[in-house]
Amino acid sequence: METQTITQRPYGVGTTVAAPYRDAVEKTRAALQEQGFGVLTEIDVQKTMKEKLDVDFRPYVILGACNPALAHQALQADLGVGLLLPCNVIVYDNGDGTSSVEALDPEAALGIVGDNPVIATVARDAKARLQRVVHNLGADRGDA
Amino acid sequence: METQTITQRPYGVGTTVAAPYRDAVEKTRAALQEQGFGVLTEIDVQKTMKEKLDVDFRPYVILGACNPALAHQALQADLGVGLLLPCNVIVYDNGDGTSSVEALDPEAALGIVGDNPVIATVARDAKARLQRVVHNLGADRGDA
Repeated sequence: METQTITQRPYGVGTTVAAPYRDAVEKTRAALQEQGFGVLTEIDVQKTMKEKLDVDFRPYVILGACNPALAHQALQADLGVGLLLPCNVIVYDNGDGTSSVEALDPEAALGIVGDNPVIATVARDAKARLQRVVHNLGADRGDA
Repeated sequence: METQTITQRPYGVGTTVAAPYRDAVEKTRAALQEQGFGVLTEIDVQKTMKEKLDVDFRPYVILGACNPALAHQALQADLGVGLLLPCNVIVYDNGDGTSSVEALDPEAALGIVGDNPVIATVARDAKARLQRVVHNLGADRGDA
């Protein structure tokens, strides 16, 4: 039987993955690729905090996910929309053998652009894809 | 005499720099550094569009700017805030020897997090710094 927990923020949707951090990052990359997202940027938050501030932080990565066709549509509709690209997906270690994966809600993020029907359509499409990413990861019982 | 044009979007602030694209990108990096921002990520939009979609796009870069101390404060206040980091600054070619530089408004972007006094303070600080970046670039007459 499949169980999963989906967590909801005002600005994102996430789930808990029954996998240690490094595995969870790899599963997330694969799940993003399945839904048409490439990972264009990657910020290792733990490493950055150590190097820049000499503070300890949990394992935490910010992946910048981008579907090129959707990004192109959005940029043609509003050249400034690069300010809100790519769409972030975070993975972090919960310290108990599980990891959290959360994806930005593109409708919330792109909502600050204002009324634009093309942007709204792109945001809806990207959101549906990211919801599938999170759902697929949450349904993974970690035995794959 | 100094003249400058500051453009305002609902989600960002920008200016026109009297410099060709590559120079404008370097000036932007330097102006960000002056205000305490490192550039953690960089997306060459023109190159990405060519490689992924085989479409031509103007020279356009998305720089992911981050002030580590502010990011750390925000992450301690709300672990999910990585979904909205780093703060994007875009530079693109206007095709007339000038370039546009725009910075995301961190108050607009972080506003979707909801009420959180620490995040609000961080957003205000980041916004003031980015406004100085844009102001300083706009005041540059290109003869430096």
